[in-house]
Amino acid sequence: MVESVVDDEDQLAGYRCDWTKHYSGAAEQVLLPSSVDQVSEVIRYCHDHSLAVVAVGGRTGLVGGTMAEPGQVLLDMSKLNHIQGLHEGVLDCQAGCILQELQDYAAKHNRLVPVDLGSKGTCQIGGNLATNAGGVYYAMYGSLMANVLGVQLVDGRGETHQFGSRSRKDNTGYKLHPLMLGSEGTLGVITNVLLACPPAPQSVQSVLLAVDREVLDKVLQRALSALGEILAAAEWMDAAVVEVVRQSGIDSPIHGSSLLLIETHGSNAEHDRNKLEGYLESLFQEELVLEGIMAESTRQQQAFWKVRESCNPAVGASGYTYKYDLSLPLHDFGVFGLQMAEQLQEFDIQVTNWGHVLDGNLHFNVTTTGVYEKDSRLLERLEHLVIDAVLARGGSISAEHGIGQTKRPYMTRVHSKADIELMQGIKRLFDPKGILNPGKLLP
Amino acid sequence: MVESVVDDEDQLAGYRCDWTKHYSGAAEQVLLPSSVDQVSEVIRYCHDHSLAVVAVGGRTGLVGGTMAEPGQVLLDMSKLNHIQGLHEGVLDCQAGCILQELQDYAAKHNRLVPVDLGSKGTCQIGGNLATNAGGVYYAMYGSLMANVLGVQLVDGRGETHQFGSRSRKDNTGYKLHPLMLGSEGTLGVITNVLLACPPAPQSVQSVLLAVDREVLDKVLQRALSALGEILAAAEWMDAAVVEVVRQSGIDSPIHGSSLLLIETHGSNAEHDRNKLEGYLESLFQEELVLEGIMAESTRQQQAFWKVRESCNPAVGASGYTYKYDLSLPLHDFGVFGLQMAEQLQEFDIQVTNWGHVLDGNLHFNVTTTGVYEKDSRLLERLEHLVIDAVLARGGSISAEHGIGQTKRPYMTRVHSKADIELMQGIKRLFDPKGILNPGKLLP
Repeated sequence: MVESVVDDEDQLAGYRCDWTKHYSGAAEQVLLPSSVDQVSEVIRYCHDHSLAVVAVGGRTGLVGGTMAEPGQVLLDMSKLNHIQGLHEGVLDCQAGCILQELQDYAAKHNRLVPVDLGSKGTCQIGGNLATNAGGVYYAMYGSLMANVLGVQLVDGRGETHQFGSRSRKDNTGYKLHPLMLGSEGTLGVITNVLLACPPAPQSVQSVLLAVDREVLDKVLQRALSALGEILAAAEWMDAAVVEVVRQSGIDSPIHGSSLLLIETHGSNAEHDRNKLEGYLESLFQEELVLEGIMAESTRQQQAFWKVRESCNPAVGASGYTYKYDLSLPLHDFGVFGLQMAEQLQEFDIQVTNWGHVLDGNLHFNVTTTGVYEKDSRLLERLEHLVIDAVLARGGSISAEHGIGQTKRPYMTRVHSKADIELMQGIKRLFDPKGILNPGKLLP
Repeated sequence: MVESVVDDEDQLAGYRCDWTKHYSGAAEQVLLPSSVDQVSEVIRYCHDHSLAVVAVGGRTGLVGGTMAEPGQVLLDMSKLNHIQGLHEGVLDCQAGCILQELQDYAAKHNRLVPVDLGSKGTCQIGGNLATNAGGVYYAMYGSLMANVLGVQLVDGRGETHQFGSRSRKDNTGYKLHPLMLGSEGTLGVITNVLLACPPAPQSVQSVLLAVDREVLDKVLQRALSALGEILAAAEWMDAAVVEVVRQSGIDSPIHGSSLLLIETHGSNAEHDRNKLEGYLESLFQEELVLEGIMAESTRQQQAFWKVRESCNPAVGASGYTYKYDLSLPLHDFGVFGLQMAEQLQEFDIQVTNWGHVLDGNLHFNVTTTGVYEKDSRLLERLEHLVIDAVLARGGSISAEHGIGQTKRPYMTRVHSKADIELMQGIKRLFDPKGILNPGKLLP
C-alpha cells in the first residue's frame, strides 16, 4: 500500500487553496503513490468503497481543477517522477516529472520538449496533459495532441491502460490517448507519458518590438512571410500589463507601448539573423513598429522572456483578478480587451491583456485594484459580457486553461446536448462509478 | 430524399472491387447524398430499419475498408464536394472534396494542405480523415491529429455533430474529433472538415541521393542537423523498387542503388540551397552517399517525385502483392526488408521496400511474380513472420493505412482486452445498433 501520506495541517493547507486563490478545497488526507501499481491499488480501493479521487500535479492550474471536497482522496503524483529515457526523439517519463527537469534532460540529448509555459519550474507533465496545456511554442511545434504519442493511465476501476505507443505513426484502431488531453483527471489518472521531442534548435534569436495594437495583424503577417519556418513564438503584451510588470520590479527594455516578443528557432544562426534583420528593416520602412531590439546575448533573451513570464504573477499579485483564456480570430485579438474595457467603465478595474497571438490565444484579465475579494456584481457582468462576446466572434471560451470549475457552467453553451451526452457516455466507460474528480469539467 | 442513386451494373462494378484487388464487395445500391441533411436522412432510415451503411470516398484505401456486403447501403460522398473557404489559415470544406483540388485551392491562398499522398488526384479529404492518412510531409507538418481542428459528422442514429471548431486552441472538454481519425466510418460518416493549413513554402528544393541502406540512419542524422527546420520529406526507396518502377516505364535519374529523396520547404531559397549544399558536401566528404543530384527546376523535382509516386502502382501491377505498412525503430528501417526476404527464400517472390523514413514508416511489399492470385501458404507464413517481427521490434503493424479488414485479426494482439472493450464501448455510444461499416476495424 502507499506508504507516503500527508495529514499534517500545515502541509495540507497547500492543497486547500489554488494558485488563483479563487478556490478552496477541503483536503483531509493526501496520498503520494510512488508506482503505477500503487496508483492502481488506491483507485481500486476507492472504487470498491465509492470514494472520490482527485489527482494533483504541480497545482499551477488556473480553473480550480484540483480542489478536493471533504472525504475525497487527494493523489499527489510528485513521487512518480522517474525519467525512463529518450530514444529516437521520444521521451519516456512518469507523470510527476516537473516540466523544467524534462526540458533540461531533453536538452542534454540535443532535443526540445515541445511544450513550454511560465510555470515550468513547478508544473508536472501529467498535469500538462490532463489540462492540455498550450504554451508559447505551440505555433511552431504544435499542440500536445500533435506530440503526445502515448499515455499510460489508471481508470476509475483501478485498471491500468497503455494508449498509443512509441511509434510516431500507429494507426491501429480508435485513438484513445487524445481523450486524456484536457480530461482533467476525470477519465483516468495519467501515470506515464511518451512525448515526441524535436531536435533542439541550434540557433535561438529573440526580438522585442513596440507595436501598436492596430497594426498587430500586419506585423504578424510580415513575420509569417519573412521568418516562415523559423518563427517559434510571438507573444503579445499590452502596455498596461507591461506597466504592471514594471511596478512589480521587472523592468522591460522597451516602455510605454504594447510589446511583441518574437523568437526564432533554427539550425543556422547566420541565416536566422539575416531573416530577422530583413524582417525588422521592412517593419521600420513601413513604419509598422515604433522601436525594436534584437537580443545580442542569451542574457538579453532571458530579460525579454522575464517580462512575458512575469505577466501572470505580477497581475495576480496586483489585486483580485478575473482571468479569461480565450481563442479569438486574429482581427479581434488586439482590440478585444479595449472593447470589453469600454463596457466596464463603471467599475474600478484594471484591464490587462497578453497572449500567444499566432494561435489567437488571448489572456484577458480584469483586476479589482485595492480590493482583494470577489465582487459578485462585477463577476456576473463580466461573465455575461466576455462569454457572449467570444461566442459571437466564433472563438473559444477556454483556449488552453481548460474547464475545471471555472468554465463548467458554460459547457452546455459551447457543446450540443448530443455532444455532452457522448462525453458523459465516455466518462461512464472509463469511470463507471464517477469517482474520478467529480464536480469538474462535465456539467 | 437522396435523388442520386447508382444501380447500373457497370457502375456498380467499380464499388465491388478495391484498389488492391484483394477484396471484393457486393454493392447493390449506391446513394450519392449532396448535403449533410441527406446523409442524416439516409442514416436515420438505415438505423430505423437496421440496415448497414458503408461510406466511401475515393476508394484508394489499402485495407479493404469500403467493401460492402449484400444488403448494405453504400454512401458515396463525392457529391459533398463544396469548399466553403479558407480564412486565417483554416480550410473549411466538405468531406467529398478531392485532396488535389484542396491543395490547388489552398495554393491560391498561399497556404499548404498539410497532407499529401500519391493518390491525391482521387482520394477525398473525408476518407483521408477516416483512414487517418499520413503521407509524405508528416515529419514537417505533423499528423492529421495535429492539423484537423474540427469535424462534422453524422453518427449511427443519423444525428449530426460538430466536434472541434475553427479555433486553433479550444480546450473545452473531451477532445472528440480525434476519435474520428482512423475510425474508418465505424463511428460516424464525416461530412465536413476544418483543417489548419500552414503558409505555403516560398522555396521548395529537392535532392535525390544514392544511399546504401547500411548508412541510411547516418545520412538522416546529418539531414536533421544540417537541414533542421526546412526538412520537409525524406522518402526512401530500395534498389528493387526503383528497378520495378523503371520496368514500368518511369526511369529514375539515378540507378542501381537504393534512393533517398529529400525535400525542403522554406521561406528563403538562398538560405535553403546554402543549407542543402552544405549537407551534400558533408555527405560526399564522409563518403556517405554514392551519388546525389539537386533539382534545378520544378520539372526535375517532379521527375524525382514521379519515381516515388510510381512505387505503389508499379509494384501493384507487377504481380499479386502483399502489402505491409509498418512503423519500425529507425535502426531497423533499412534492414527489415532484407531480414524478411532471407526467411522467405523458399518462395518465388520479389520483395520491395520504400517509405517515410523520418517517421519510421516502412512500406514492405511482397509480390508473387508471374502468378496473379493469392498463395495461402505464402500469406500464412508472411503474416506470422512480419507481424511477429514488427511487434518484437516494438513497432506498429499499421502505421498509416489503418485496420479495415486486412489487420482486423490482429487488433486483439496489439491492444489489451480492456482497451478493446473501451473501443467497443465508444462504438456503442456513436452507433448503438452497429450499422456503420460492420465487419471493419473492431474485432
